[in-house]
Amino acid sequence: MNFTINRSAFISQLNNVLRAISSKTTIPILTGLKMVVNEDNIVLTGSNSDITIESVINANDADNDLTIEDTGAIVLPARFFSDIVKKLPDKKVTIEVTSGFQADITSGSAKFQINGQDAENFPHLPEIETNKSVTLPNDILKEVIRQTVIAVSKQESRPILAGVHMTLKDGVLTAVATDSHRLAQRKVVLENIDNDIDFDVIIPGKSMEELSGMISDVHEDVQMQVTENQVLFIFGNTHFYSRLLEGNYPETSQLIPQTADTTVELEAGTFLSSIERASLLSHESRNDVVKLSLKPSENLVRISGDSPDIGTVEEEVVTSALDGNDLEISFNPNYMKDALRSFGQATIKISFTSPLRPFTLVPTEDQENFVHLITPVRTF
Amino acid sequence: MNFTINRSAFISQLNNVLRAISSKTTIPILTGLKMVVNEDNIVLTGSNSDITIESVINANDADNDLTIEDTGAIVLPARFFSDIVKKLPDKKVTIEVTSGFQADITSGSAKFQINGQDAENFPHLPEIETNKSVTLPNDILKEVIRQTVIAVSKQESRPILAGVHMTLKDGVLTAVATDSHRLAQRKVVLENIDNDIDFDVIIPGKSMEELSGMISDVHEDVQMQVTENQVLFIFGNTHFYSRLLEGNYPETSQLIPQTADTTVELEAGTFLSSIERASLLSHESRNDVVKLSLKPSENLVRISGDSPDIGTVEEEVVTSALDGNDLEISFNPNYMKDALRSFGQATIKISFTSPLRPFTLVPTEDQENFVHLITPVRTF
Repeated sequence: MNFTINRSAFISQLNNVLRAISSKTTIPILTGLKMVVNEDNIVLTGSNSDITIESVINANDADNDLTIEDTGAIVLPARFFSDIVKKLPDKKVTIEVTSGFQADITSGSAKFQINGQDAENFPHLPEIETNKSVTLPNDILKEVIRQTVIAVSKQESRPILAGVHMTLKDGVLTAVATDSHRLAQRKVVLENIDNDIDFDVIIPGKSMEELSGMISDVHEDVQMQVTENQVLFIFGNTHFYSRLLEGNYPETSQLIPQTADTTVELEAGTFLSSIERASLLSHESRNDVVKLSLKPSENLVRISGDSPDIGTVEEEVVTSALDGNDLEISFNPNYMKDALRSFGQATIKISFTSPLRPFTLVPTEDQENFVHLITPVRTF
Repeated sequence: MNFTINRSAFISQLNNVLRAISSKTTIPILTGLKMVVNEDNIVLTGSNSDITIESVINANDADNDLTIEDTGAIVLPARFFSDIVKKLPDKKVTIEVTSGFQADITSGSAKFQINGQDAENFPHLPEIETNKSVTLPNDILKEVIRQTVIAVSKQESRPILAGVHMTLKDGVLTAVATDSHRLAQRKVVLENIDNDIDFDVIIPGKSMEELSGMISDVHEDVQMQVTENQVLFIFGNTHFYSRLLEGNYPETSQLIPQTADTTVELEAGTFLSSIERASLLSHESRNDVVKLSLKPSENLVRISGDSPDIGTVEEEVVTSALDGNDLEISFNPNYMKDALRSFGQATIKISFTSPLRPFTLVPTEDQENFVHLITPVRTF
């Protein structure tokens, strides 16, 4: 193996693959980065056994300034290798493996010699052979992930809830996540899709978060390919593999109430600020709840929080519509903050039935495709 | 107490005083912020018993937009109070204490009620009555702190070394710090000073670091007043008090070697990058050292590091002058990195006597006023 490459182009591809590599792994070779040098490209692979990321650096892309003298393959300690490449003095770097598994890294007057491992020992990539393939617009996929991963469970007691349930049926992609205290559901009608394609998978929330970070750097659409136990997302020169969670996701569609006794419309951003203020005090009390009093009869919505040690806070909430019965309801402000952030600056409609039944938040502009549900807290 | 103030002006003064306030204190009232409202100003005080910071907000400064309706004093929980003020909705905030020690904080539609404490219970400020007062240019004081605090000891075994030894004699201010592995000494000839004024104090390194952070936001010169057990720095509307360390600082002047057998001149910034590369590997080995080989006979300086597990690195160092005997010397790269950073982009001269004797670094432009000394590591 012997090649010379523009250092900053190399670093940007390294950073991509590093996202999959953890120093805390029970499989030692997975702390390594696999590098395969072919006649006209270099393939970098990193994996933590849940996620595998593969990035291709092409010789015919002028930005890479890549000259391949000799092909070959090696696994190098990922963290060190990237730290070294990032700190090298010159604009270019040459990497050479002459014999055995020792790599010479040269840049300017600096010369490193690093011990590597046989690339043959690196786990092989899952094989994806499927006709279940859809193309998702980059922006839409990012939005779907952002709006649902917040509701993924962090508890280990029900591992299946650590995933986002993604289904495709009749051209509609549905993503659902719930930690049993709250639920987020997003639907997207896909255009130009073969209506015969359907799937029903549970993708680990952590994989979705990593994927979201990676596609936020690019603008390409994302091709999603599904098999029985793997999903593959392809964008640009990058392949992102994730294992799927095994098991049956709970039926969630009947959890969302279809009627309401009290409804309010308000700006998500402004309401978020009010909740943040109220939670300053509630966070300090043993049961971290804030209370919302809705009085359509007086056209008044008031939020309040308190901590016996510190003090109290109350604030009138600005609303654009308020209807139905008077209601007092308490909830965990953290759930509300997560939910409101997922709506950005939209106007939202919150629909309540009773103080102990879950309530829903939807954007007023598009009440069908995104709904967030929160279970209140009993305080009496 | 009743006043209304521009919120962002208030926050910037709050932030100043918060630097002194820790939530981990054995004296509960010191988690509080003392606020005294006078006829024409507000005085904020925070303290951790080592450091006390006092900030005055004047009614006649138009930026504060301060209206004082009623005077008074109270101690409020510092962290909450500042979190609340920072999150309030309106441009202005009104703070009112009607009876007892409960403060009403109002801004826009948000209203907080916070439990406070009697300001009489807050420890009184040390009284500074001294004629030992000097004015230090802001830039110079920041530089003196930056160049010396790095050598302050983090070990608790010799508490006296946790301070910077500052002396004033014959119009020369000298600051010295050492952790017994390295030493930094900076001298400043003060202009327009009464030569009869002298002092000899040890200021805690942590106090110096806090002070440095605060004066970096302003451009005013700093007045330094010294008493037997306190030092006071005054700049703008802020008073910064620190206790002094008690005891005798070790005699350090004779530690600095006056002769050299090998000297090299190089750019601090470029050499720092080389050391950072070499330390990538040395940090992974049990004895974290890098080796410098100086061969004036061949006009060659080479730096190297290694870790048995990972690999090796070596690099030729660019020098602008190299004289004396050939020498191989090993040292802790962290000490070298700290030292080189304190020189910025200057050209420096490093003077060695033997592989086991301390070596010195000085800027070539000003060899008298700043010297950094590092003890090498025995590797044979």
